[in-house]
Amino acid sequence: MPTEDPHGSEYVPAHWKTREWLTGFTGSAGTAVVTQQEAFLWTDSRYWLAAEEQLCGSGFSLKKDLVDESPDAWLKERGLAAQYLTETEIDALWPERPGFPLSQVEIVPTSLAGESAKDKIARLCGWMAQEDRSSCLVSSLAEIAWLLNLRGDDIPYTPVFISYLKVRAEGEHTLYIHCEQINAEVEAYLRRLNIGIAPYESAPTQEKTETPIPFWRAVKNPVEQAGYREAHIRDGVAMVQFLRRLDEADVTQWTEISANRTLTALRAEQPGFCGLSFETISAYGPHGAVVHYEPTPDTDIPLSPKSFLLLDSGGHYDCGSTDITRTIPLGPLTEEEKRVYTLVLKGHLQLQNVIFPEGTCGLQLDTLARMAMWREGHDYGHGTGHGVGHRLEIHEGPCQFRKNVRPDTVAPLHEGQTMTDEPGIYLAGRFGVRHENTMLIRAAGVTAYPGGQGGRFLCFEPLTMCPYDKRPIVKEMLTREELTWFNHYHATVRETLLPRLQDPKDREWLISATSPL
Amino acid sequence: MPTEDPHGSEYVPAHWKTREWLTGFTGSAGTAVVTQQEAFLWTDSRYWLAAEEQLCGSGFSLKKDLVDESPDAWLKERGLAAQYLTETEIDALWPERPGFPLSQVEIVPTSLAGESAKDKIARLCGWMAQEDRSSCLVSSLAEIAWLLNLRGDDIPYTPVFISYLKVRAEGEHTLYIHCEQINAEVEAYLRRLNIGIAPYESAPTQEKTETPIPFWRAVKNPVEQAGYREAHIRDGVAMVQFLRRLDEADVTQWTEISANRTLTALRAEQPGFCGLSFETISAYGPHGAVVHYEPTPDTDIPLSPKSFLLLDSGGHYDCGSTDITRTIPLGPLTEEEKRVYTLVLKGHLQLQNVIFPEGTCGLQLDTLARMAMWREGHDYGHGTGHGVGHRLEIHEGPCQFRKNVRPDTVAPLHEGQTMTDEPGIYLAGRFGVRHENTMLIRAAGVTAYPGGQGGRFLCFEPLTMCPYDKRPIVKEMLTREELTWFNHYHATVRETLLPRLQDPKDREWLISATSPL
Repeated sequence: MPTEDPHGSEYVPAHWKTREWLTGFTGSAGTAVVTQQEAFLWTDSRYWLAAEEQLCGSGFSLKKDLVDESPDAWLKERGLAAQYLTETEIDALWPERPGFPLSQVEIVPTSLAGESAKDKIARLCGWMAQEDRSSCLVSSLAEIAWLLNLRGDDIPYTPVFISYLKVRAEGEHTLYIHCEQINAEVEAYLRRLNIGIAPYESAPTQEKTETPIPFWRAVKNPVEQAGYREAHIRDGVAMVQFLRRLDEADVTQWTEISANRTLTALRAEQPGFCGLSFETISAYGPHGAVVHYEPTPDTDIPLSPKSFLLLDSGGHYDCGSTDITRTIPLGPLTEEEKRVYTLVLKGHLQLQNVIFPEGTCGLQLDTLARMAMWREGHDYGHGTGHGVGHRLEIHEGPCQFRKNVRPDTVAPLHEGQTMTDEPGIYLAGRFGVRHENTMLIRAAGVTAYPGGQGGRFLCFEPLTMCPYDKRPIVKEMLTREELTWFNHYHATVRETLLPRLQDPKDREWLISATSPL
Repeated sequence: MPTEDPHGSEYVPAHWKTREWLTGFTGSAGTAVVTQQEAFLWTDSRYWLAAEEQLCGSGFSLKKDLVDESPDAWLKERGLAAQYLTETEIDALWPERPGFPLSQVEIVPTSLAGESAKDKIARLCGWMAQEDRSSCLVSSLAEIAWLLNLRGDDIPYTPVFISYLKVRAEGEHTLYIHCEQINAEVEAYLRRLNIGIAPYESAPTQEKTETPIPFWRAVKNPVEQAGYREAHIRDGVAMVQFLRRLDEADVTQWTEISANRTLTALRAEQPGFCGLSFETISAYGPHGAVVHYEPTPDTDIPLSPKSFLLLDSGGHYDCGSTDITRTIPLGPLTEEEKRVYTLVLKGHLQLQNVIFPEGTCGLQLDTLARMAMWREGHDYGHGTGHGVGHRLEIHEGPCQFRKNVRPDTVAPLHEGQTMTDEPGIYLAGRFGVRHENTMLIRAAGVTAYPGGQGGRFLCFEPLTMCPYDKRPIVKEMLTREELTWFNHYHATVRETLLPRLQDPKDREWLISATSPL
């Protein structure tokens, strides 16, 4: 029993969370194997701590990816073949299985998408002609939403709708969807695009195609770029309002969950807010060292005037999406906490401020975020950054910053892509630090250096507009360049956000938080 | 007509330099294609300038790799199939074809190799047993030389001998070689290893095998590591003697070739010197911008008291091999020359001083050598570093620092490997700067950082012992860390070389050249 839905979604709809229902393990990656005698769950290092706890009493034992033999190898050794449950078998075993969410589909106007669905479909048909294909079945929910400029609410945090789309070079295209999700306006919109509607269950799923949409979607057009900037200003206003309140609060009256609620409420006041872009990670003290910690009523702890609150959060707005992490000191810090905070900041700044030639890939730039912490024996197991969808998947392909050799780390980066920059250090049982901005890849100019593949250079424009906390920084650990970058970013944040802040207390807080270090 | 010999040697013996004979182009990479109507030579960007000149009047026109379509695509478009000349056809076309070099084979004692040929053959037989192979035909000349602890002189700069080796799990092994190359001592040595001799032409060449030898050979054993250190001290003594003489000379009396002759003569005075490890690049002024420039009597130019002499050279010693580049100012410099010199130095120092976790590959570290120059719009087309053989190939696999995604840039680096660090900037028609040290990968300690693949870290020990010229450095461009690394390296060079220098002038020069910046 793998962890996946038929559409390859990162966040699996409840209807297909069969593995979670069976094992009790809630992580986003894992494979359950059940034999007549035994039951195991395989998952990767991000989830080992959480899985050990959640599997307790379930009858499943944990197997560790890359440490233990793989499910395939394990089965083979025992002379067993993998058998997958059918949809009908799952329905029979799981009477309370959730149905389909059936959210209403809505239209994204071209004024926000920057390119009409008609033009996008024409691009796809152009590619099909090149590839000599008469039709193409799109199964990725985010690809369908992007192509049609439609959004839904079938999956938490990812505003898509469950469907398949068949695009035909000649004749009518077909959207396979539960028809309750399509109102008259959307039906008319689809009709104008020459798209008919058919029942979801009738989709010819065996025709699934790989499309170039992930590459097209990653490169944001000028309207989307402007939208991201605006979304990040709104998000920055909410962050500043939150950080000022937290600064003034008696933190012992707050918990991880109440901090998240306060922040989410402030985001929700912003125009065009459509929802969180992922489950907030609000992790205090030792919880900050659990990389994918999300507080639940069972684990929630009150804050204290010491150590760090690690807050990784983001929102979808009508014009773009955000993903930001700030690590906030709640009181006096140890020398080690300050040093670790500064090491992560150095890596974060080195990546954010690099200038690099066209053709460079994520594996090459990942090192910049790690080199300072490597020098002191630290590292982190997760990636350094991912693409950010435009009111779509918050983790978007096809590029990543990451130290593993994978297709997404050796794919060249392109102007117009949105990427996060989020190194961290996690000291188990003690505390965690992560700093994250979302950035836009921009042209940095052309030089005539001879040899090589020409001289087009790229750089990152930080989209995130929110101060880093200055208090934990060990200033002597920063190079002159890093200090200049830091102060320059803070000046930009101040100039950008100040006109949007009405409350004098927020304005005063921002001015002080962004004063030069 | 490709550029290669049947053994895949980097430096092709004259006997197989058919492409060079046909086209007049001397570069180490290229493919000649001749039809009834046309003749072309394809080569890569390193050689475009040189090829344009050398092909002039040859009837061949230049095609550029990655810019023009490939030879295969070019042929396909014209409905042609590639046909390769046989050895017999080449003999017939090329009456003056050089014969085989037939150098004498000599034995490397275990006291220098650190592992006996018997033990190495046993390692290979162990691998064959694992792979369920009854025999293995080794065709790489450097692999044969490494495995048998033998050296020859059949190829300039690479002390190998032309042969094939068949290793059998049971029974006698066979060395296919021209028997004139084996004296009685070597024959007896081979006999003790259970190796018989057979004519070179009788080798079963169709049985060529890929072996794990490149991975074993790359990791130097403690005896080899000590040998490299000693070789680099001897080489450093020769370099210091040379640099002091150059400093005191009226450089207008010197040329690129005479500088090389002086340096080579000083190297030859060192104990255990066996020859240069590659053709010296002695490139003055604008010649420094031609990446693979080697002076010939036709191109040789006198030096002047201005600009840079770029000197990339190295030697084979009985105990190890060296590869070093220094860029030497011969008089007053422009601000741009100083700035470029310092940018390259920053990259060179960042790579040499990195600490990185086990599992890291060359593609990840390459960026460190480029990030400073990228910021000012510079880059270089060549790799940043390669493995260095132990009195074998100066360019040794299986790892490289390089910005291209290739098997050798994504292969993890290991403790015990020797690698060069040689970034550069080349301003066509004006000048070039490169700094190069050979380094040894060493353990840097173990930390307990959680997550990830554990906490074993590696670092580089510079093997090269020779000052960088301090005069061109723009000190304000160095970070505090870079300045500390620089001065620390110079202090190490001074302490290491001073006891080996007799001449008070050399000693005085070294003390001054390595005084803190």
